[in-house]
Amino acid sequence: MARAGIKGPGLLKGRNDMALIYSEDPATVAGTFTTNKVIGAPVVMNRDKARSASSNRARAVVVNSGNSNSCTGVRGMRDVHEMAKLTAKHLGVKESQVYVCSTGVIGVPMPMTKVRKGLKALTACIGDASVDAAAQAIMTTDSYPKMLTRTVKVGRQAGRITAICKGAGMIEPDMATMLCFIMTDIAVERSALRTALKEAVEETFNMLTVDGDQSTSDCVLVLANGALGNAPLKKGSVGLKRFASALDGMCYEMAAMIARDGEGATKLMLVEVEGAHTVAQAKKAAKAIANSLLVKTAVYGADPNWGRILPVLGRGGTTMDPLKVDIFIGKVKIASNGMAVPGAAVIKKAQKELKKKEVLIRVDLKAGRATARAISCDLTEEYIRINSEYTT
Amino acid sequence: MARAGIKGPGLLKGRNDMALIYSEDPATVAGTFTTNKVIGAPVVMNRDKARSASSNRARAVVVNSGNSNSCTGVRGMRDVHEMAKLTAKHLGVKESQVYVCSTGVIGVPMPMTKVRKGLKALTACIGDASVDAAAQAIMTTDSYPKMLTRTVKVGRQAGRITAICKGAGMIEPDMATMLCFIMTDIAVERSALRTALKEAVEETFNMLTVDGDQSTSDCVLVLANGALGNAPLKKGSVGLKRFASALDGMCYEMAAMIARDGEGATKLMLVEVEGAHTVAQAKKAAKAIANSLLVKTAVYGADPNWGRILPVLGRGGTTMDPLKVDIFIGKVKIASNGMAVPGAAVIKKAQKELKKKEVLIRVDLKAGRATARAISCDLTEEYIRINSEYTT
Repeated sequence: MARAGIKGPGLLKGRNDMALIYSEDPATVAGTFTTNKVIGAPVVMNRDKARSASSNRARAVVVNSGNSNSCTGVRGMRDVHEMAKLTAKHLGVKESQVYVCSTGVIGVPMPMTKVRKGLKALTACIGDASVDAAAQAIMTTDSYPKMLTRTVKVGRQAGRITAICKGAGMIEPDMATMLCFIMTDIAVERSALRTALKEAVEETFNMLTVDGDQSTSDCVLVLANGALGNAPLKKGSVGLKRFASALDGMCYEMAAMIARDGEGATKLMLVEVEGAHTVAQAKKAAKAIANSLLVKTAVYGADPNWGRILPVLGRGGTTMDPLKVDIFIGKVKIASNGMAVPGAAVIKKAQKELKKKEVLIRVDLKAGRATARAISCDLTEEYIRINSEYTT
Repeated sequence: MARAGIKGPGLLKGRNDMALIYSEDPATVAGTFTTNKVIGAPVVMNRDKARSASSNRARAVVVNSGNSNSCTGVRGMRDVHEMAKLTAKHLGVKESQVYVCSTGVIGVPMPMTKVRKGLKALTACIGDASVDAAAQAIMTTDSYPKMLTRTVKVGRQAGRITAICKGAGMIEPDMATMLCFIMTDIAVERSALRTALKEAVEETFNMLTVDGDQSTSDCVLVLANGALGNAPLKKGSVGLKRFASALDGMCYEMAAMIARDGEGATKLMLVEVEGAHTVAQAKKAAKAIANSLLVKTAVYGADPNWGRILPVLGRGGTTMDPLKVDIFIGKVKIASNGMAVPGAAVIKKAQKELKKKEVLIRVDLKAGRATARAISCDLTEEYIRINSEYTT
């Protein structure tokens, strides 16, 4: 990661719970944020910074887990600005170039005395730590750190994209308690970077759901600092296409990692809806199936009960004729034209598909040509245990 | 119940799984049905009968559990008509006067050989069995039979309303796998009966949710056979007001019974939203909180984590200022103007409220004057166990 000039983490309590991403060169920034109306103070600040033309070059992102600084009122806003200001001071950069992301409990004021110490420690150890350690420090209920690196050909050079993310529960379409930081040494024009990120997020993180609950803190930030020395990638260029394609793939991989690590999950569950009347309907249908408790528990129990899938489609505004719908589990067609495909062999084969670590539910509505995919996981007793014990 | 002239159940397998409600006098009928697009063959037939002016007098309702006759195509329609026809023949009534309700597995054809025998047995034992036994026979994953009786003063006489219902999982606003049969000896004019039922269901069964999944079979039927001998109750009359009020109360009680018996539930969870901009928004907000996995698991774990409640409001189109919202758990104000009410004593008191068998979450949006209440339950490991083992 030294190549992108973006560097590592520090610590607070027993476990690392603060991380610092630092770029030696000012980086072009693009971000997508939670659409929840109840948003954390850091989201308010970051969104303003990312949208402002004057301050959208970033030098640092400070991340803490354990407290989301959401529903903390005026004090929360004051605290997040202090975090940015202190970090800027320690690093000798502008306050407008520092982003802050917080994840964790909602409604509890930030423990600023600890945070101030943490920020000092963080900024003092720049260059000492790895991306790995940063991925570890931003975890909350995640069971493993999530990171990825890809190489992208830019002219004759090889640029790199590295990403870390976190998220396990409170994950819903439109990005729940997830944070994702994508760092690259490739120079990309600002508007091209924004479009590439928006398009990548649309089909990946925004189609991700663990429990249908949406958080107040979700944020995906991409920082492109141009340390590679290339001429900034422009819209329509081959370089940008390669970059965008790598970004797409990485966002999908990370969304799948988050789903696989969904609280209590034992399986990745992909839901593909095809033959929909519109893309919006395809997305809505895919998300509805991916969020259905009865479907998620059936996948957990490897029960090929397609009778739980069809009614999910029936409750929304999906254009369809129930007597035309085909349903597949993996490669196995289990329902044809809204009715069971007969035979015990079909059930057996479908059960086998459901016992895999990655389960695909595919629905053909035969009402049009639009498709969508949702990324989700099964629902287990462990999810309940984690969330009935997670404490205020 | 002999008074209403409506009588009892028969049996199929080990456990009773068919019931017959029979009225000696033709009864005025009103019904509300699932709004799912994927509906069972019986719902198609009943809806047509209840809406048709010529055939809306009922003599019998046949109910079976174990198979919902949904997603069974043309064969399903043929089967349900045969069930009505056979019952009519055995009872010596018109086919148009027989309603059929089926609940259970989706996508499996009705085992008609067994059903034919069952129908014969059922119709042969009229008068032998109790309402209790009928309530038992319609159970699927219910852990206890659900019935209620109320007396209503009609002039100088006392009429009775008796109701049985079933439902535990796949319960969502707009009535999921629930069936409810309300029988009365009071004569009520048809349009008055329809309005009274619609209004009662709107605030009760349609605000009930166990798991957010909606079924293909839901149906509430009220049969008023006039055996009491009163002049049919008219709109605007004192008698109708009393009748409607009793119906409201009974529908609420039954919805609460279903929630309390929600699959795996340990607690009844009531969600009241007040100060909403419109009733539609109040209902939507109350349902969203009642369906949130994070809220339901927090209630299960008696965790006064109001930080899970506020973001639920933020994800919908609820008109509100997050910094004005108050949240109460039982009588305890836990969040004031979108922020935590400070003090460890508050948490302790809220925990005490959450340990009760009936938990009330109350939210004041301070955005208007509309209110709504949702009826729900907590979410436990047992729900997962039941639904990952329930078999195709």
